[in-house]
Amino acid sequence: MQLTQQLLHEREDYIYDVIVIGGGSGGLSAGVYLQRYLLNSLIIDKGKARSFWIQALHNYLGLPSDTPGRELLKQGKAHYLSIGGDLLNGYVEAVADEGTVFSVRTKVGRNQSIYHTFQAKYIIAASGIIDHLPQLENMQNVYNFAGYNLHVCLLCDGYEMQNQQVGVFCASQSSLEVVSPLSWFTPHITLFTNGQFKVLSEQKQAFSKQGIPVIETPIRKFLGVQHQMTGVELTDDTVIQLDSGLIAMGAHRHAEYLQGLDLECKNENLITDSSMRTSHARIFAVGDLKVGMNQVIVAASDGAIAATQIWRDIRSREGSRPKS
Amino acid sequence: MQLTQQLLHEREDYIYDVIVIGGGSGGLSAGVYLQRYLLNSLIIDKGKARSFWIQALHNYLGLPSDTPGRELLKQGKAHYLSIGGDLLNGYVEAVADEGTVFSVRTKVGRNQSIYHTFQAKYIIAASGIIDHLPQLENMQNVYNFAGYNLHVCLLCDGYEMQNQQVGVFCASQSSLEVVSPLSWFTPHITLFTNGQFKVLSEQKQAFSKQGIPVIETPIRKFLGVQHQMTGVELTDDTVIQLDSGLIAMGAHRHAEYLQGLDLECKNENLITDSSMRTSHARIFAVGDLKVGMNQVIVAASDGAIAATQIWRDIRSREGSRPKS
Repeated sequence: MQLTQQLLHEREDYIYDVIVIGGGSGGLSAGVYLQRYLLNSLIIDKGKARSFWIQALHNYLGLPSDTPGRELLKQGKAHYLSIGGDLLNGYVEAVADEGTVFSVRTKVGRNQSIYHTFQAKYIIAASGIIDHLPQLENMQNVYNFAGYNLHVCLLCDGYEMQNQQVGVFCASQSSLEVVSPLSWFTPHITLFTNGQFKVLSEQKQAFSKQGIPVIETPIRKFLGVQHQMTGVELTDDTVIQLDSGLIAMGAHRHAEYLQGLDLECKNENLITDSSMRTSHARIFAVGDLKVGMNQVIVAASDGAIAATQIWRDIRSREGSRPKS
Repeated sequence: MQLTQQLLHEREDYIYDVIVIGGGSGGLSAGVYLQRYLLNSLIIDKGKARSFWIQALHNYLGLPSDTPGRELLKQGKAHYLSIGGDLLNGYVEAVADEGTVFSVRTKVGRNQSIYHTFQAKYIIAASGIIDHLPQLENMQNVYNFAGYNLHVCLLCDGYEMQNQQVGVFCASQSSLEVVSPLSWFTPHITLFTNGQFKVLSEQKQAFSKQGIPVIETPIRKFLGVQHQMTGVELTDDTVIQLDSGLIAMGAHRHAEYLQGLDLECKNENLITDSSMRTSHARIFAVGDLKVGMNQVIVAASDGAIAATQIWRDIRSREGSRPKS
């Protein structure tokens, strides 16, 4: 059921089989599988799944290609609740390994917050990432277009940018690596540093030979109407027309709660085996937090695989029948 | 486009980037991703995807839990065709590695068949498996219930069999391994050998202690109405009432066309790396053919991953722009 501050006392001294941290596609898919294996699960979601911002899921098999990410999440939550899963809107502050169970310290409510510590035998870390966005004076101006034609994922939306005039919004030297795969889709690329870093002059020359301008003047605002970005206005009043944009500024991992558990990582991504198990036998990771492709369908599959392995673990340890 | 016998001449001397063998969830998801990476792909489908027989996909994130497998396939095919993919109903007889391309010998049409050899740089083997079914005199009697409450997948449908009287239909000693995971969901299990093999007497005693009868008399027919199986009638006229059934008779792999390519396998399943690449650098495998969980959502994810790796391969070799 949907837990609320008022209902938390119903779960006093309760030990979940699994607490899933994150209610995006990976966490919800895991939850559906766990409940269908007759396990008790709680999904704690802080409500910022990356797919929530996707205005059209163009590549998720089975859904019409104009399906918004939030529709997938809504459907998944309803499905999960319909088979008895517990769902809580909250923010996990810390996970501690107490030996046979984990304690999961959670903040509930933004205002007049209360704190509650849940217990579970297994953890699935499904809290994903969130993209860095250009920091403009008026952030609403960025939100107006991000997820529409101001894209954050080249794999997802390269197709949409075919032969378009594309502005690439970079945060550092490493952001520039996106130019090569993007140029598979379009030759019309303009790079924007927003004044945040200097592009090396030999690199600028190389881009210039490819016909790719590098704009280092800070951005004042995105231009456009009705969520369709049409260009950029710089702080020196220059206006640059664009058909679409690609934000390539890296991302922030939502996994502070795992600090202290010493899980093995590669480039900040959690390393898992083929069953999504991390270097801790009872912590699994799915979706964008782990090594692998950041795609909604992959996260959903990861969740199914992690849930199945946890069921197998519990079944082999606890015998052939659940208690209830 | 949908290719037909009449349209095959339009693809003379054409070299596809990728031929996908199999139009189930793995193949279709691969196809959608490939087309969105501006690659040229052909899916050859013989029309027997395992998911076609699933009457309700209970665990595919984003789809209502009563969605028939065939709806997912229909949606996926329409999506793939809408972004320019080629789709052919045909049967791949052989794949030969000609050095830089593969030739794919295909039979088109069941009656008055013609043969056509296609060429591609990459192959995605997505042709899956098909479950062995109890061989009764009247097979239509089996088809009437299979995929409804005569299940073939414990992971998918254990939940549906909760506390039910379940008949398990076995083909050999190894089929009996399903009893342990099934008993997680229900203690009311009856085993049927259909007279096909003898259960060892000590094993029979062990089952007897668990309250699990072993029926070795051959089955005459399934009983039931409207796709709902209600029991079994044996050849000695005995009738056994059941709420549902689980067919655990193993499966047949649709991959004869790979013979001679010497791909590495484990227990008949193709071994792949994390990008779905087999031991041949230009042959990928997705879904039930490979090592891993046989689940629709996993196959769909596999397809996305394989397609992305092939795009990366081609991009790094062919430079930054497709020819067209």
